[in-house]
Amino acid sequence: MALATLTPERLTQLHSELKSSYEALKDRDLKLDLTRGKPSPAQLDLSADLLTIVGPDSYTSAEGTDTRNYGGLDGLVELREIFAELLNVPVDLLLAQGSSSLTLMYNTMSFAMLHGVSDQATPWIRSDNAPKILCPSPGYDRHFALCESLGIELVPVAMLDDGPDLEAVRALVANDPAVKGIWAVPAYSNPTGAVFGEDITRELLAMPTAADDFRIFWDNAYGLHHLTDDEAPVLDVLDIAAEAGHPDRVFIFASTSKMTFAGAGVSFWGSSPANVAWFKRHLAAQSIGPDKINQLRHARFFGDAAGVRAHMARHRAIIEPKFAIVHKVLEDRLGDSGVAHWSSPRGGYFVSLDVLPGTADRVVSLAKDVGVAMTPAGAAFPYGNDPEDKNIRIAPTMPTEDDVAVAIDVLATCVLLAAAEKLAA
Amino acid sequence: MALATLTPERLTQLHSELKSSYEALKDRDLKLDLTRGKPSPAQLDLSADLLTIVGPDSYTSAEGTDTRNYGGLDGLVELREIFAELLNVPVDLLLAQGSSSLTLMYNTMSFAMLHGVSDQATPWIRSDNAPKILCPSPGYDRHFALCESLGIELVPVAMLDDGPDLEAVRALVANDPAVKGIWAVPAYSNPTGAVFGEDITRELLAMPTAADDFRIFWDNAYGLHHLTDDEAPVLDVLDIAAEAGHPDRVFIFASTSKMTFAGAGVSFWGSSPANVAWFKRHLAAQSIGPDKINQLRHARFFGDAAGVRAHMARHRAIIEPKFAIVHKVLEDRLGDSGVAHWSSPRGGYFVSLDVLPGTADRVVSLAKDVGVAMTPAGAAFPYGNDPEDKNIRIAPTMPTEDDVAVAIDVLATCVLLAAAEKLAA
Repeated sequence: MALATLTPERLTQLHSELKSSYEALKDRDLKLDLTRGKPSPAQLDLSADLLTIVGPDSYTSAEGTDTRNYGGLDGLVELREIFAELLNVPVDLLLAQGSSSLTLMYNTMSFAMLHGVSDQATPWIRSDNAPKILCPSPGYDRHFALCESLGIELVPVAMLDDGPDLEAVRALVANDPAVKGIWAVPAYSNPTGAVFGEDITRELLAMPTAADDFRIFWDNAYGLHHLTDDEAPVLDVLDIAAEAGHPDRVFIFASTSKMTFAGAGVSFWGSSPANVAWFKRHLAAQSIGPDKINQLRHARFFGDAAGVRAHMARHRAIIEPKFAIVHKVLEDRLGDSGVAHWSSPRGGYFVSLDVLPGTADRVVSLAKDVGVAMTPAGAAFPYGNDPEDKNIRIAPTMPTEDDVAVAIDVLATCVLLAAAEKLAA
Repeated sequence: MALATLTPERLTQLHSELKSSYEALKDRDLKLDLTRGKPSPAQLDLSADLLTIVGPDSYTSAEGTDTRNYGGLDGLVELREIFAELLNVPVDLLLAQGSSSLTLMYNTMSFAMLHGVSDQATPWIRSDNAPKILCPSPGYDRHFALCESLGIELVPVAMLDDGPDLEAVRALVANDPAVKGIWAVPAYSNPTGAVFGEDITRELLAMPTAADDFRIFWDNAYGLHHLTDDEAPVLDVLDIAAEAGHPDRVFIFASTSKMTFAGAGVSFWGSSPANVAWFKRHLAAQSIGPDKINQLRHARFFGDAAGVRAHMARHRAIIEPKFAIVHKVLEDRLGDSGVAHWSSPRGGYFVSLDVLPGTADRVVSLAKDVGVAMTPAGAAFPYGNDPEDKNIRIAPTMPTEDDVAVAIDVLATCVLLAAAEKLAA
């Protein structure tokens, strides 16, 4: 039933019933965790061969490099070739680096702060006003925390079904030279699963900006992580940007963290020739070169781009059922409640759940008290501040299917209980 | 013979003979490289078992962590325990991170620039004057380049046989609050092999400084890399600093780059409780955690501190003869020339050669033209500027013994030829 239409008596009765159901949950001693987008052990097992694929007699790269020794700032070319095709970036403009694309994003942002985004540009930290980054929200909490750590102001803009709210973005970038960039997760955005429309992508790359050093932080974290056959395309954004007259506007990031091993994958950084030279010059001050042995493991394990796609299909086979369970339980429990809406992502790692405004924090708190850990409410917004207190991120990949079903059922009870409390108040 | 004592005629004759010898070298088509301190393939082979020691059924740490997944910012405790003993740092104050200690040094320095060295401190980049770092010279070129990249002024101080020139250091730190720190490679310094005396270490940790946020960047890169039985001790510098009333003065760095695989080792960062909290807070903005699989490989491969020491003895067995060759050829060719002096290191990776002032650049250029690549003259000094143009760094570990012998013999010819040119001019 739609909670908002209930009589006060019926609502009181429902609240009482939900309260009893909720109290009963405490006896189950649950300990379930849907907080982070982690691959499950079964997914990690898919890459088991990676561990031993480089052995005592096979550490030499195709180019003849002893991967055990120092050097090679760009990363192994045989690995870069595979991901150049998948990420739609020319191989000479794509660097392969260490285990974390988050580190590459931090480096890029900190280089911009300390040095400016080119030899001629002013360091962002020397700007008259604190630099600002547009943050489509809900979005990825670590993107926001990274900027906040560097002293960059976070400016929320709404994330719509096909990308950021362009009208809002245009207005913000047009007049304020302190707006230096925007975060973008173009495919299967964290957490809503939104796929950027091609028109929106083109406009972001082409739009006029007051800042002449405006940059798009294009985090293609999930571009190959499809959950349906309706696969989001990977556009050649460097080419589109160049054609639009802004060749240096976009920094591209990706990693294999959710392809092979979450803590021990490889990361990628791509951009224009000028930006690659800029990034490498500053990178060279902090690194002699990335872990080439691990890069060789990945190149051998995947073999080619088709090998990566086949591997990602095996991930899909494991996690698609978990997303189906989330959808089914939410539909069964909340479908006609009128107090919840959720995303049906075509890829990525999350379901975004919107509950009755003003209750998200309460829902997460209720769930926690019966042993179901969710990402803190508001985490997907700049400064952790969800202005409507309604968004909850669900990360269903790590637990088993049975645990996902139990956790989402508990979550649904908490959503209804919090809504009944609110409506009855 | 001592070149400086020769008659003009004898000097002209010698120059002519050396010139002939040098010209003859061109026919040998040599291609030898003594530029960087790289381990040789034979040294890398010592760690062959590391490659496959973590396999599909053995990725769980002693604590029960699935090392393949996300998390664990501090690094695996079983690895930290081994190196806590070796580096003389309490395990809870020692972090294990990725493949490069240079990256940790850069991070530490950039955090100091952007945030200051504590919650209360002023970011170095906001100081009235550009921050300055004291650079004992000759020293490690990447230390200097890192600071230069961050906009930190390099201030040379002389490196003596038992550490930096304390009188000069004391004078510089006592009055100038812009002097924010000093580089230190306490054991087997790059390139001279100097071992810091305990008195000098204690004084560096205790001396009054005008800057209340003065820090020592204690890069213990070679502390376990002995070449003789007269092993440099690893002092408990955190404890000494605390007793001297400066508990937060020192940041400790180390890595296994020259123990296992130069490009794929693990690194360590140690400091006081307050500094560890400071570093982790900023590190968390750029990393979810280091590559724990590679850390588990290292913990298993070494087993314990004694395992590391035994492994380092095997390195010594390979490289000690190369250092002996360097010493013998230099002694045979230059011992009585009066135009060359060199270090006899008890450990580390380098021999520091001082030639006739004003000829180092010429020597390196001459060697290059006959196929022997040396580190550029002046590289071991801030801004690449050796004020006397006399220092050359020899890195003998990578080539074979035969190649070392040939390269040093060629180098000796170049040293004599350049000296004869200079003295005859």
